[in-house]
Amino acid sequence: MSLIKGKVLIAQGGGPTAVINQSFVGAALEARKFPQVTRVYGAMHGIKGIVNEELCDLTEATTHNLEAVARTPSSGLFSTRDKPTVDYCRKIFEVCRAHDVRYFFYIGGNDSADACRIVNEQARSDRYELRVIHIPKTIDNDLKVTDHCPGYGSAAKFVAQAFSGANLDNRALPGVYIGVVMGRHAGFLTAASALARTFDDDGPHLVYVPERAFTRKQFTQDVQAVFLKHKRCVIAVSEGIVDAKGKPIAEQFSGGERDSHGNVQLSGTGALGDLLSSWIKADTKITRVRADTLGYLQRSFLGCVSEVDAAEAREVGEKAAQYAIWHNLDGSVAIHRVGDYAVKYFLTPLHTVAQKTSEMPAKFINKKGNNVTDAFIRYARPLIGAMPTVARLSAPRVRKVLNK
Amino acid sequence: MSLIKGKVLIAQGGGPTAVINQSFVGAALEARKFPQVTRVYGAMHGIKGIVNEELCDLTEATTHNLEAVARTPSSGLFSTRDKPTVDYCRKIFEVCRAHDVRYFFYIGGNDSADACRIVNEQARSDRYELRVIHIPKTIDNDLKVTDHCPGYGSAAKFVAQAFSGANLDNRALPGVYIGVVMGRHAGFLTAASALARTFDDDGPHLVYVPERAFTRKQFTQDVQAVFLKHKRCVIAVSEGIVDAKGKPIAEQFSGGERDSHGNVQLSGTGALGDLLSSWIKADTKITRVRADTLGYLQRSFLGCVSEVDAAEAREVGEKAAQYAIWHNLDGSVAIHRVGDYAVKYFLTPLHTVAQKTSEMPAKFINKKGNNVTDAFIRYARPLIGAMPTVARLSAPRVRKVLNK
Repeated sequence: MSLIKGKVLIAQGGGPTAVINQSFVGAALEARKFPQVTRVYGAMHGIKGIVNEELCDLTEATTHNLEAVARTPSSGLFSTRDKPTVDYCRKIFEVCRAHDVRYFFYIGGNDSADACRIVNEQARSDRYELRVIHIPKTIDNDLKVTDHCPGYGSAAKFVAQAFSGANLDNRALPGVYIGVVMGRHAGFLTAASALARTFDDDGPHLVYVPERAFTRKQFTQDVQAVFLKHKRCVIAVSEGIVDAKGKPIAEQFSGGERDSHGNVQLSGTGALGDLLSSWIKADTKITRVRADTLGYLQRSFLGCVSEVDAAEAREVGEKAAQYAIWHNLDGSVAIHRVGDYAVKYFLTPLHTVAQKTSEMPAKFINKKGNNVTDAFIRYARPLIGAMPTVARLSAPRVRKVLNK
Repeated sequence: MSLIKGKVLIAQGGGPTAVINQSFVGAALEARKFPQVTRVYGAMHGIKGIVNEELCDLTEATTHNLEAVARTPSSGLFSTRDKPTVDYCRKIFEVCRAHDVRYFFYIGGNDSADACRIVNEQARSDRYELRVIHIPKTIDNDLKVTDHCPGYGSAAKFVAQAFSGANLDNRALPGVYIGVVMGRHAGFLTAASALARTFDDDGPHLVYVPERAFTRKQFTQDVQAVFLKHKRCVIAVSEGIVDAKGKPIAEQFSGGERDSHGNVQLSGTGALGDLLSSWIKADTKITRVRADTLGYLQRSFLGCVSEVDAAEAREVGEKAAQYAIWHNLDGSVAIHRVGDYAVKYFLTPLHTVAQKTSEMPAKFINKKGNNVTDAFIRYARPLIGAMPTVARLSAPRVRKVLNK
């Protein structure tokens, strides 16, 4: 057990998820059990809050309040897109040292893992005892090492329920429906659109992910073929789809806005969906084409949580406190899948998760690059938990007496 | 009691809702109880299915199947946007007469009510005994006479949950968030964005409905004022907002596509949200502006149903069968609100609901025309049923030791 006496500091970074507060509350409540932990602090707005010394004392939050926050989507401690430089980390230190912080837990994606790595190295080179644990979180499901990421299951459930409903709507009033799904480089969330397919002819009929080159010609031919067969077509497409040269199709509409990580804005605009609609109208004879961009609802919609995802998000938070305080370790908490379906947790070095991201394995995408495989369904279905069911009317047709 | 022996025919028209199948199944199961009803038929794709004689025999559907369909969103019998002319109605008749249909129940909005009226008049002038009941349904909540419309409560719940989540997301990563909500002429659904506000500074901070003229100047000034106060701003805006001359702001982006009722396409495009974003960026110094168009998810998302709405949708279907078969009446089923909160049902003449629509009463919109009133909240909150709760962290701030 680590005998280092001092404070715990917890922060949340990057895009919120429906269950990110489960991780924060899991870490806070677990950390409060240890006598060598003098206080549990939360940083407001991630590492920016540390630098600005905007901290709150979670030791004085009630358990009831923390449990209620755990069930609330989005980052209860607020978030930031700041990426720390070495100078930025120096400031983080001054604050940690000044407040006797000895355990730092940062919940986020690969950028947050990288921040953890830098802070950890800085601590070591300064000979300051600071345990740093990265707690994984991302709806993109694109972190290295871990089988999957907390936050993904709930976002995937939202996407599955959205497309299941859109498919029913499209059956009632046929046409082409395009749903644009979040995902800059990894298609996992877009692929989740297929998880609620029940009947053979259920949509989405076409699924396009950033891992495969997207061409207008192939796209409109695919749509035409589906439309001929089913007289309708439901399409799921990642916001991050790229052309044969790897250039995002959406990039020309972004107005050039970039975040501090150099990423072009993809979400919060309906331009990609509208462009794809216009291509279908121009290249085929289909007239009724509708495009929705699922947008921020995917990560923050109230009341669409996978119970599996919520439980795992809670546990990675608890494990962070245990690894750091029981075991005196640094690293990133990762998930190992066992059986069908259970998980075990382990700690992986921070550098194995920092910066890099994963893409969908080739076995999850069909040969044509326009749909997902059964292997993906088997992988992802346990993560979204229980789903509402859909039914089709089963009633015999009446024999015509006039229009025979 | 009507002693007319013959068949019942049920159809669904217009945009689907999350609970429209409750009405269809309520009518079908209730009608099956009467001995003078020889068969209960369903028309596929609304009145288009009648004209094409595409009917199914609901008498041979199992109760289990019908109940499962009742819980499934979107129109289980499929839908149509066709608006019947007198000729069209003549064809409906030939089919009704050929199949000995004596009770016709059509579930839909004001256009469907109008179809009912025409069919009913045609029947009378042809001296053909045909009871016609319009069963109300619309997420727009814009039908005349009735206190509110089945379908609205569930769509309102979706919008409330979407904005509650978007508000939490916007608190975590501040900026301006615009959510574009369905609603061509009536702002009820957009107003529902305010139903999940819990804390005084919760968004949406601004709510724009089609009932008030929308100007760029007032809009960007409103946004600037909210942003100064809260350092963030969440905005709900109807897709149908109009300028001072009554011209839809979105009209210039529609590409001119119109349905058979002459309505310009507003949904299924992100252009309005993107336009409003560009106005904010141009007229203020705010840089982080995101716009989502909630789109078709509002009416078909799987797993977001108001239990109040579902029960009422079921009952208007049951009442339709009772009015027609017990009481030998034609008309449109309407809801009367009693107490806080209960309802009673009554029948109103078809012409009182046909064609015309309602708008939000003035008492539901604030004087500035940029928000809803408490009167609206009191009106609408019972309709959305139980809502997930949200919590804010309550922990004392830590005193600064460095950046004092």
